[in-house]
Amino acid sequence: MLTPNLTVNAEGHLCIGGADTAALAKAHGTPLYVMDETMIRENCRGYQRVIAEEYGGNGLICFASKALSCKELYRIVDSEQLGADVISGGELYTALQAGMPAAKIVMHGNSKSDEELKMALETGVGRIVCDNLPELERLNRIAGALGKTPAIMLRIKPGIDAHTHDFVKTGCIDSKFGFALETGEALDAVRAASAYPNLKLVGIHCHIGSQIFDTEPFAEAARVMVRFMAQIRAALGLTLPELNLGGGPGIKYTEDDDPPAFGSIVRAILAALKAACSELDFPQPFVLFEPGRSIVGGAGLTLYTVMAKKIIPDIRTYVLVDGGMCDNPRYALYHSRYEAVLANKAGDERSERVTVGGKCCESGDLIGEDMPLQPAEPGDILAVLATGVYNYSMASNYNRNPRAEMVMVKDGAARTVVRRESYEDICRNDI
Amino acid sequence: MLTPNLTVNAEGHLCIGGADTAALAKAHGTPLYVMDETMIRENCRGYQRVIAEEYGGNGLICFASKALSCKELYRIVDSEQLGADVISGGELYTALQAGMPAAKIVMHGNSKSDEELKMALETGVGRIVCDNLPELERLNRIAGALGKTPAIMLRIKPGIDAHTHDFVKTGCIDSKFGFALETGEALDAVRAASAYPNLKLVGIHCHIGSQIFDTEPFAEAARVMVRFMAQIRAALGLTLPELNLGGGPGIKYTEDDDPPAFGSIVRAILAALKAACSELDFPQPFVLFEPGRSIVGGAGLTLYTVMAKKIIPDIRTYVLVDGGMCDNPRYALYHSRYEAVLANKAGDERSERVTVGGKCCESGDLIGEDMPLQPAEPGDILAVLATGVYNYSMASNYNRNPRAEMVMVKDGAARTVVRRESYEDICRNDI
Repeated sequence: MLTPNLTVNAEGHLCIGGADTAALAKAHGTPLYVMDETMIRENCRGYQRVIAEEYGGNGLICFASKALSCKELYRIVDSEQLGADVISGGELYTALQAGMPAAKIVMHGNSKSDEELKMALETGVGRIVCDNLPELERLNRIAGALGKTPAIMLRIKPGIDAHTHDFVKTGCIDSKFGFALETGEALDAVRAASAYPNLKLVGIHCHIGSQIFDTEPFAEAARVMVRFMAQIRAALGLTLPELNLGGGPGIKYTEDDDPPAFGSIVRAILAALKAACSELDFPQPFVLFEPGRSIVGGAGLTLYTVMAKKIIPDIRTYVLVDGGMCDNPRYALYHSRYEAVLANKAGDERSERVTVGGKCCESGDLIGEDMPLQPAEPGDILAVLATGVYNYSMASNYNRNPRAEMVMVKDGAARTVVRRESYEDICRNDI
Repeated sequence: MLTPNLTVNAEGHLCIGGADTAALAKAHGTPLYVMDETMIRENCRGYQRVIAEEYGGNGLICFASKALSCKELYRIVDSEQLGADVISGGELYTALQAGMPAAKIVMHGNSKSDEELKMALETGVGRIVCDNLPELERLNRIAGALGKTPAIMLRIKPGIDAHTHDFVKTGCIDSKFGFALETGEALDAVRAASAYPNLKLVGIHCHIGSQIFDTEPFAEAARVMVRFMAQIRAALGLTLPELNLGGGPGIKYTEDDDPPAFGSIVRAILAALKAACSELDFPQPFVLFEPGRSIVGGAGLTLYTVMAKKIIPDIRTYVLVDGGMCDNPRYALYHSRYEAVLANKAGDERSERVTVGGKCCESGDLIGEDMPLQPAEPGDILAVLATGVYNYSMASNYNRNPRAEMVMVKDGAARTVVRRESYEDICRNDI
């Protein structure tokens, strides 16, 4: 099985966190997002442990909530002592509604509106990561009007190529995010930011990309950032106390994937960070990490009902389900690969190769192609694995399909954490 | 200008349907979807006129509401005597709430649930287009239980290659939709469907794809379908009275696009249809068309506020706006191209080439690359043209961004037809 929390019970049904997925589909309907609370908590603790063991606990793990933003997730990560990184007013609102302390929230975004900046200031988020010069100017003005002096960080492009998909590679100079190091733009931005009277520059931030399997780009980013902090000290006499290294560790989506454990990545990063600080005689900064996918990705799966099977001789076999790109647009967007299992036949061999098609009115509405699967029949329950990340959060009402329910499994029992949308919900803002 | 409803006023502002878009942005905020009611109505009438002139009005134009589903759209097309094609319970619910008569609704879908079929039967939709054998069996059973005998059509793959993007090409044998003609599957399905006691087979349906600029594939599909109707008559003694030819005419997204007017496409289809009927001595069927894009696509635009501009020397210039793939995922999905104009500087020359980036936390969150644009500054209003189709309908709450407001412009005045989402709306189903 892809992740250790998946098992097959005596009836041959797939179980996650001890809960029978075929029974969950029956009780809650499909499509259904199922999350394993125990695995989410273990992942949170795994990150915390490394920071404690390797860095004296001198840091904060912020859950990158764009990965999966709903109230219950903020409650869970908060109770595990994590903070949250938010990218919009909507994520900030949700986090605060869930009781996440504002001080543990990091506010991101390359196009924050005045309203979002004001909301961040008024609610007292711990850190605002600024992306561009017009934003610094607006934030200084709004902060002044409100009598606030927010702690800010600057988003830096460290120039690291993380050898990943174009769409999720963000640390290179050709990115919409942040200030480039190699052109001198970043140092200019530090100079500008530190001169604004209503802003308190506390550190710098970088994020080299997502779903990365290599340890070295992370370690190199840490070195580059420490060198830049030393450069800032030399050039401006400013010793920044904080360093935010973003997220990016990859997860196992398919049997072919073999990512390093995130713990070993963070250990390598911290070793590189400490070595660079020692070499440059720079005080070890308070460190922030912003993992998302590696905390929730493998902890989730999606259940669908098989509606039909179409065998096209010599071409392919379609297994059609009652969800699709409306609940998981990642194959349509990136051709992302997933493993699938028939939840009610999980003990059988996956002897066929199929294309899983969704219910949307679009040929590209596929969950995957060339997927090994047990022989499917209408009424079977299809489980698509490792969908805990960027599925619910990217879900749409395309074709006015209601968004799916999400349940959280703990000790074999499931509770609803996001209710299924109703048709009334979909029409609520129509006039 | 891309479409004739776009003009520039004395202040140099872009106007749509006589309404100043810069003023709309100020009054309603951004991002903002703006639709031109007059153009939508003209497009509806254009389709109606061709059916009246070339086919004695013996047909029904059904707006393919996946293109843009909200109550007001159903009201407008209904008042223009169009029906609607719906693809889900959610679209059906919206259409009925808006007052569209059920008899004018065609229900589609390759994975309709039992609940959706029951809803279609209970509300009395005019036609249900069946996609596969298990669906026929379920529909017959549910109809029997409800004492109904619905009019059904069968979705047929006519084997036409419409030379379009893989993701929107649906008439070939390798499609998740319908029954293949060339393998005999379609005739078997007709035989099966006509034998079910609770189903009344009235016709067949095909859809060869979307955004098609060629007339000939449409004409050929009509010939293929009439030939198949004649084959059904010969093999089963069954003369089907209806033919649904789907949608697909392309629109002008960029200055480089030169699609034929949809009227000339429909004329060519009807000529081919009549010729094929005459040749095969087959009675001219009641004809249905299901246009979506060609009715609403060019009638809409999206307004954004420019938040920042990033010039990356020798690489590219980013113009960052306050929306993105959350309100228009089509560049992320298909690399679809759009034209953009600064609404408040529309009289100036588009002297720069820029990449328009959104506010989502993702490098692939772009509205377009290499787009001609007037020199942009923060605070400018960016208008992206021809976004009336598959923008609002595919919008998500990615990054928990609220979905944008939509206004309808008529005679220079604008009214809200879809309210902007609130943060409360986004959290409504979170527990």
